[in-house]
Amino acid sequence: VHRSDLSLASLELGPYSHFMQKEIHEQPRALTDTLEAIIDDNSFSPALFGADAESVFKEVDSILILAAGTSYYAGLTAKYWLESIAGLPTSVEIASEYRYRKSVANPKQLIITISQSGETLDTMEALKHAKSLGQHLTLAICNVQESAIPRASRLVLYTRAGAEIGVASTKAFTTQLVALFTLAATFAKQRGLLDAEQEQAYIDNLRHLPGSVQYALNLEPQIREWAKAFSNKFHALFLGRGMHYPIALEGALKLKEISYIHAEAYPAGELKHGPLALVDKNMPVVVIAPNDALLEKVKSNMQEVRARGGELFVFADADSNFTESEGVHVIRTPRHVGVLSPILHTIPVQLLAYHAALLKGTDVDKPRNLAKSVTVE
Amino acid sequence: VHRSDLSLASLELGPYSHFMQKEIHEQPRALTDTLEAIIDDNSFSPALFGADAESVFKEVDSILILAAGTSYYAGLTAKYWLESIAGLPTSVEIASEYRYRKSVANPKQLIITISQSGETLDTMEALKHAKSLGQHLTLAICNVQESAIPRASRLVLYTRAGAEIGVASTKAFTTQLVALFTLAATFAKQRGLLDAEQEQAYIDNLRHLPGSVQYALNLEPQIREWAKAFSNKFHALFLGRGMHYPIALEGALKLKEISYIHAEAYPAGELKHGPLALVDKNMPVVVIAPNDALLEKVKSNMQEVRARGGELFVFADADSNFTESEGVHVIRTPRHVGVLSPILHTIPVQLLAYHAALLKGTDVDKPRNLAKSVTVE
Repeated sequence: VHRSDLSLASLELGPYSHFMQKEIHEQPRALTDTLEAIIDDNSFSPALFGADAESVFKEVDSILILAAGTSYYAGLTAKYWLESIAGLPTSVEIASEYRYRKSVANPKQLIITISQSGETLDTMEALKHAKSLGQHLTLAICNVQESAIPRASRLVLYTRAGAEIGVASTKAFTTQLVALFTLAATFAKQRGLLDAEQEQAYIDNLRHLPGSVQYALNLEPQIREWAKAFSNKFHALFLGRGMHYPIALEGALKLKEISYIHAEAYPAGELKHGPLALVDKNMPVVVIAPNDALLEKVKSNMQEVRARGGELFVFADADSNFTESEGVHVIRTPRHVGVLSPILHTIPVQLLAYHAALLKGTDVDKPRNLAKSVTVE
Repeated sequence: VHRSDLSLASLELGPYSHFMQKEIHEQPRALTDTLEAIIDDNSFSPALFGADAESVFKEVDSILILAAGTSYYAGLTAKYWLESIAGLPTSVEIASEYRYRKSVANPKQLIITISQSGETLDTMEALKHAKSLGQHLTLAICNVQESAIPRASRLVLYTRAGAEIGVASTKAFTTQLVALFTLAATFAKQRGLLDAEQEQAYIDNLRHLPGSVQYALNLEPQIREWAKAFSNKFHALFLGRGMHYPIALEGALKLKEISYIHAEAYPAGELKHGPLALVDKNMPVVVIAPNDALLEKVKSNMQEVRARGGELFVFADADSNFTESEGVHVIRTPRHVGVLSPILHTIPVQLLAYHAALLKGTDVDKPRNLAKSVTVE
């Protein structure tokens, strides 16, 4: 019996209109599955990353993360965790840049590659380049078993997102973040920077994450309303600070990829060094808001453009006291997840991109000009 | 006798319509003046950076550059020089991000701050933060004598751009780049990585730079023609690779700041990981092109969007063999400056932004919402 891929795909979609929508909603399950593999005995253990991970980790004095696209933003987020929790100096570099430039090799540096498919050409070539420089401490974070990049790496952690079909990555990204946070916590423990109480607190944070993500998914009706303010625009600006800046980047990339709206992200403090000149009623500004202090600063930066109709759309923390006002819209994520906050704040920006694209009528799962796995230069 | 600042300013403009135009054209002079202070005895010497620079430099094992806006892009360019020429691992961070996050302090790291005014609040606060973490090896690159940041730094190099009045930085940026290249060469020499022949070659490169910049300024009529293809657009994409990627960022920022065109820069290899979806006839693509191999790759990435009218505008090297074709426009910089190529390629992107803004009729010297020195958060 021959059955075309298309009809098979339709069957697999279930109640969803697109694979991207399905994959966004699968995240509580994908995170649960990934976590199940990661914390089976209520503690962080290097063994998770490979039989000789403990001895490899002991050699490590710093970290270099190599990736492309959405995986690169996962790496940028991980930098905050690795430096603040594990005290490891961390650099993050775009694979296609690293492979072509003369850098300073450090054999004690752990090279982490991140790739959903494990076949991303630039990331594979960057890994080869690092190894050619004598960098032999290598770890792959990957979603596809036995793909090329993990096979070329000494250590590996597989995320359990399941097959991802939508070109715009969603569940692969959030499971990568869980893997990278776990790595930071594991390093912190091995380096004596994580006491038993804090370890338990992190594990509790991780255990509660899928439920909190489900709560964030329940914001979909409100975000669908917000999407109307984007679908008739050609621009958007995403702002974040600290570990939420990479989520602003990811939110902008999602909107770009599937709605063809020219969205760009900036760290909030850079607004006044240039992009503020662009803001008017045609450019909504999304703020991924870790705290009210940042919000007040952004709001004060925005005050002069409010007169020209610039509107703010704020994703705030559960306990934010920041209030709505004329041209300032706020959605609060319903639960606290502490240092995992970047993962939780990813959900609303995914939903915003999806609903803006739906309203624009684009081909959500196969955006023009893009391929799922970039296996060419 | 009282004379208003405005009329004084008008007098000072001479034959130019705007301070930005004047300051773009002053660059051969600003670079010559800066170089005069830097290479007075035909060699690179640490003494240039302060009396005890030689002993400070000996302690340095890596570099962290802190800056904002255009100065941040100067820092990104310097990373390539410092790593490839001087073998020093270099990180570059946005000042407003660094000051608010928990990072890993390294007392052997040289903290370099870059600020035209020397009064940029975020950069000053980032410097204070670094010092509070025990980072006492500090160097300021600055254009205004005795301003706050150099006064708070152990070492300093003043650029000699002269007063910069246009809000969008031009001559301050290119002179910062010369200062940073000189620093990389000085470190390379002190670390035994620069032989006499190479040192002389770099000095020759620097000496020829002002003349080469003058040749690039002479491209203005061609670039003014190109500006017509941008002034009626709302978007632009700037691509670069390696040490030309920061110049793509700077080109996009200039266009944003003064023409209000939403220009964004990407490292060329990331095009296919997202922004390619945005490209159509409404989004011209500028390529800052170090070599033909990159151009061929970008051209191949672009082939599928050519059908939808996406146009390429290429700034290529003097000896590029890349040829024009339908929808692919090429301007060649007239002279070779070797590793100083990012400085030379800055000139055409400044001119492009200026002429696009002129055609749009914006307030070039005082773009909306922006201040010259950002002395608030």
